[in-house]
Amino acid sequence: MTRHDFTSDNVAGAMPEALEALCRANHGFAASYGEDEACTRAADAIRELLDADAEVWFVACGTAANALCLSALAAPHEAVLAHEHAHVVVDETGAPAFYGAGLALIGLPGPSGRIDAAALEKTLRRGEDPHWQSPAAISLANATEYGAVWKTEAFAAIAAKARAGGLKIHLDGARLANAVAAGFEPASLARAGVATLALGGAKAGATPTEAIVLLDKSLGGRFGARLKHAGQLVSKSRFLAAPWIGMLEGGAWQTRAVHANAMARRLAEAMPFRIAHPVEANAVFADMDRAAYKRLREAGWFVWRVADGSVRFMCSWATTAEAVDALAADLGRIAEETGARPKARAAP
Amino acid sequence: MTRHDFTSDNVAGAMPEALEALCRANHGFAASYGEDEACTRAADAIRELLDADAEVWFVACGTAANALCLSALAAPHEAVLAHEHAHVVVDETGAPAFYGAGLALIGLPGPSGRIDAAALEKTLRRGEDPHWQSPAAISLANATEYGAVWKTEAFAAIAAKARAGGLKIHLDGARLANAVAAGFEPASLARAGVATLALGGAKAGATPTEAIVLLDKSLGGRFGARLKHAGQLVSKSRFLAAPWIGMLEGGAWQTRAVHANAMARRLAEAMPFRIAHPVEANAVFADMDRAAYKRLREAGWFVWRVADGSVRFMCSWATTAEAVDALAADLGRIAEETGARPKARAAP
Amino acid sequence: MTRHDFTSDNVAGAMPEALEALCRANHGFAASYGEDEACTRAADAIRELLDADAEVWFVACGTAANALCLSALAAPHEAVLAHEHAHVVVDETGAPAFYGAGLALIGLPGPSGRIDAAALEKTLRRGEDPHWQSPAAISLANATEYGAVWKTEAFAAIAAKARAGGLKIHLDGARLANAVAAGFEPASLARAGVATLALGGAKAGATPTEAIVLLDKSLGGRFGARLKHAGQLVSKSRFLAAPWIGMLEGGAWQTRAVHANAMARRLAEAMPFRIAHPVEANAVFADMDRAAYKRLREAGWFVWRVADGSVRFMCSWATTAEAVDALAADLGRIAEETGARPKARAAP
Amino acid sequence: MTRHDFTSDNVAGAMPEALEALCRANHGFAASYGEDEACTRAADAIRELLDADAEVWFVACGTAANALCLSALAAPHEAVLAHEHAHVVVDETGAPAFYGAGLALIGLPGPSGRIDAAALEKTLRRGEDPHWQSPAAISLANATEYGAVWKTEAFAAIAAKARAGGLKIHLDGARLANAVAAGFEPASLARAGVATLALGGAKAGATPTEAIVLLDKSLGGRFGARLKHAGQLVSKSRFLAAPWIGMLEGGAWQTRAVHANAMARRLAEAMPFRIAHPVEANAVFADMDRAAYKRLREAGWFVWRVADGSVRFMCSWATTAEAVDALAADLGRIAEETGARPKARAAP
Repeated sequence: MTRHDFTSDNVAGAMPEALEALCRANHGFAASYGEDEACTRAADAIRELLDADAEVWFVACGTAANALCLSALAAPHEAVLAHEHAHVVVDETGAPAFYGAGLALIGLPGPSGRIDAAALEKTLRRGEDPHWQSPAAISLANATEYGAVWKTEAFAAIAAKARAGGLKIHLDGARLANAVAAGFEPASLARAGVATLALGGAKAGATPTEAIVLLDKSLGGRFGARLKHAGQLVSKSRFLAAPWIGMLEGGAWQTRAVHANAMARRLAEAMPFRIAHPVEANAVFADMDRAAYKRLREAGWFVWRVADGSVRFMCSWATTAEAVDALAADLGRIAEETGARPKARAAP
Repeated sequence: MTRHDFTSDNVAGAMPEALEALCRANHGFAASYGEDEACTRAADAIRELLDADAEVWFVACGTAANALCLSALAAPHEAVLAHEHAHVVVDETGAPAFYGAGLALIGLPGPSGRIDAAALEKTLRRGEDPHWQSPAAISLANATEYGAVWKTEAFAAIAAKARAGGLKIHLDGARLANAVAAGFEPASLARAGVATLALGGAKAGATPTEAIVLLDKSLGGRFGARLKHAGQLVSKSRFLAAPWIGMLEGGAWQTRAVHANAMARRLAEAMPFRIAHPVEANAVFADMDRAAYKRLREAGWFVWRVADGSVRFMCSWATTAEAVDALAADLGRIAEETGARPKARAAP
Repeated sequence: MTRHDFTSDNVAGAMPEALEALCRANHGFAASYGEDEACTRAADAIRELLDADAEVWFVACGTAANALCLSALAAPHEAVLAHEHAHVVVDETGAPAFYGAGLALIGLPGPSGRIDAAALEKTLRRGEDPHWQSPAAISLANATEYGAVWKTEAFAAIAAKARAGGLKIHLDGARLANAVAAGFEPASLARAGVATLALGGAKAGATPTEAIVLLDKSLGGRFGARLKHAGQLVSKSRFLAAPWIGMLEGGAWQTRAVHANAMARRLAEAMPFRIAHPVEANAVFADMDRAAYKRLREAGWFVWRVADGSVRFMCSWATTAEAVDALAADLGRIAEETGARPKARAAP
Repeated sequence: MTRHDFTSDNVAGAMPEALEALCRANHGFAASYGEDEACTRAADAIRELLDADAEVWFVACGTAANALCLSALAAPHEAVLAHEHAHVVVDETGAPAFYGAGLALIGLPGPSGRIDAAALEKTLRRGEDPHWQSPAAISLANATEYGAVWKTEAFAAIAAKARAGGLKIHLDGARLANAVAAGFEPASLARAGVATLALGGAKAGATPTEAIVLLDKSLGGRFGARLKHAGQLVSKSRFLAAPWIGMLEGGAWQTRAVHANAMARRLAEAMPFRIAHPVEANAVFADMDRAAYKRLREAGWFVWRVADGSVRFMCSWATTAEAVDALAADLGRIAEETGARPKARAAP
């Protein structure tokens, strides 16, 4: 039996708050293409969360949310900086280049998915030149692809550095709920000069929906046409908006993320393998050799090696303590069998 | 109070069968990106409907379904033929050209959205030439944008003509349910040599979901990557698949369309204005002058003039006889007030 | 024997002034990619011609010059207005849509290739809407595709109307030399608020070279990267620049166009068929029936029917009076043989 | 005074044979867009060089030649493998991604620009997966970006490996003349299964012109439209074709490359700094520290550091022995002044 519990946060279903709101939205006739009441109400909830007067659109796919934002921030002959292992770089099958008609992603190093400030500065010092795609924007992520969380001040600092270098700022917020659950202030994004935010719905616990938040409202105006042109303007938009109402108005978006983060910490505390990244949000990354990883898969746990070679365990709103404990038990057994050195973890 | 009942078939919610199936799919953990059981089961149901061994993918947006198919059938320097008033031509904000890196749409005339065979042949006779985008494919629609239905034999005939001219065939099936409800045989599509089908979910009564059906399986293989690259591979794919299970396994996809078509006929029978197109599916188009149209909008009915100047009334699974009768009453009053010549309809 | 003399102005070779300058540029080593002295000197000559401080780049192909400019003026989800028979619309195989990632061209009517002001205003009145590609720019041409010439004041007036409607302005100046030879003031372009100009080299009498002139310098900065990204930054740029030095510094660019225009008038005066458009630049368009056209082709004259059905005769710097007279003699004979009504021309 | 002699092989002018042929082509009227006699004759000469019945097109820019070929071999959601420091990867400003609507380039390691066979095999073993752009083609270069030359047999071997892995093969032949001058058999390309070749004109000594050679003729048919759509179909095509006639019919294309290669060897023999790559074609790469490089630039020699950190000295048909000796003298002096260890070269 294959268990997907820790494969990703997208293998979970929808949290009750999201699904119930979706069902409630299913009455009567409603305007389509984002002009319905659910869209307005959901956008209001997002504006309140971010304490900002942003333009908000809903799409069904996080890859699209990121790609649409990036293509609004950089021209085809320009580049977007991102962490070398960011989701937009390693896991979106070239969508930013498709949406951006060939725009480039330039990968920068940095610990646990946080871009290194010195690397950023070095790239910004490279002069203008027609023979490369000069950076016009930067894509940050919070939480990062390695489950780390930018603190409010650290995020503001890197954002300031980027803006000083002439870059516009995109935030991949697929797991912003988990970052907020870890203490990040969502209202700081506007203050930090973030231009566009891909606010994650699916991984937070929604049915398919992501929000594109244009904190820089000068990017809006014809954004609906941009969506439609890109095959991203869903007609029955109420079904993309309603889950946000359910998740945000009662606070579940955040409290469910608190749970997911807690499950990751529970797993980290029991993890017998070396933990590869600080456990600050809803993921645990462990260094496992080939034999251990093979046994883990044979034990039915469907998890992945990621870009840095570590094995990723992802928790979600739906992760149970029982599942964590069952996994931990299997991991403990495997560690013993494969002779992995006993629990010597980095700080979880 | 504005009533959207007849604005489009996308202002309706989801039919109970679709929503209940979606809710049933929301248990436990499931593989994502199309590898879950719901996707397989829904694809099987579609293959059964079409009696064909096709590759099936689910996306959230009909514009995307069409654009993805067209870009798989024609190169950027080629063209796709379509009716001059087809949805892909007049209502998709250039999505085919975006997905196809500049592929062209060439509009052909024809009565009520059905492409005229002579016009098709004339275009096919124009020789190869680097100074225009030669056609590589044709996009047909059933039901058409004007609510007409290709009969099985007529469709096969135009398809044969297109294939004889070297064209690959796409079917925009946003309203295929209504065509099938009007007698069109879905199993005839594979026999007619259709390569790709955008099978409509939303307008049939689903939450946001459309099926891309690759009847020409040679187009598949890397279609998942094509979707992901285009920001169209939704992670929690079970929620795109489940409504199809609900709609197809019990036959609601078709029986709900029978109802929608019947509502259109009911409206047609009461229509005091000249009916512009044969009422064969779920739409009624009426010729209304400026004054009458203005009064209709003032009466709260939110409907549109379309490309040929007529006013469109669209029925759906959710349209009630009461709403039809209320609309008909208002139309009758307006016809009288504006002196529209009394009911002299084309054959409904 | 097929004679191409009147097929186009691109069937002529290069004028001596252009070729000699190209040969003179072929000494020693020179910086590449536009950083050589010839590029600077040619750009200076263009700036002097236009009396404007523009950024200038050279490309080898007029289609590219137009497409690059248009994609700098309109986003992929926007449109560019142009005359419905403009070269960018009917003769560039979708290049603007390719360069612009799906940007749309919206064709407007107007006599002899000049856009009708009322049609422009009507289009500008259509409101914003995500379901179509709203116009962001307009592409004008001088001389027009039908050999008409915008006078300085008329051009300024249509440009003012476009700018008042929020449009940026591109000028397809493939035949600007012929317009200038007919009295148009090149220095009026900057005053009229033209943002981008594709200044024609090949049709004026150069080896392959066209100039992209960014009168709106805010579009520059990274334009070299835009060219390189688009495969348009030729390395040995001196060979694209030198012909401009040869053509502009001694005035040949204009005087050769005066000759071409005179040849067109000579042909117009002898034309026995109805002349379809005012002969204001270097082209004559004649209405010929199928039989007459067939005989003309059989007589060895390789000319084309164009979008409005007329037959185009194009003169260039290289057209000789002898060739005009030989063509006129054949046309006279054919007119007589086919019973074309005797010379009843529109004002040439 | 800055000397560009060794900056690149594109800082040279055109060889006399090319320029004279261009001038000879400048008589009378000629068909345009590749349908003139010069194009046919030049294409014949290329087919003879390659001993293959290929379709041949001419463009003005090498970046475009590569990008057009790659976009014909791989879909937007696929990838092209190339050496990690190949020109298409590091020096074309994203043109392949623009032409290919977001197609990816995957860089592979290998000594001196030759792709390592083991690295190729490893990449081919990675399975199909919608979450990355699977490779559909490989771009090889001969001579390589580091001046190395694939021998005929070694090239056939890597090509066979690529084809066995399902890849189509593109050859960036910007410096194929130099490879041929070093012994590579041009007729082996067709036998090795190369599908597309970008045959270098400019770097070989032409005015701006490159040849796109479709050895896989199934890629043709509508290639003219592909060029036009991409703004690459130059109207006065005779000027792109003629230089090839001049270079190929008398053998200058090859004999001039023999000279360029000899100049590189002459420089290598005198090079006091460590030579970083085998000197097999027309380039020398040397490891110079910051101080030495600075002095070299101060001495007026305009050369570049390249991707691997070495300094590149590029020879061409126009490089003189006197220039080599002058450079060598300066390098010797600088080596002495900066205390670079005395001449300890890798095998030139």
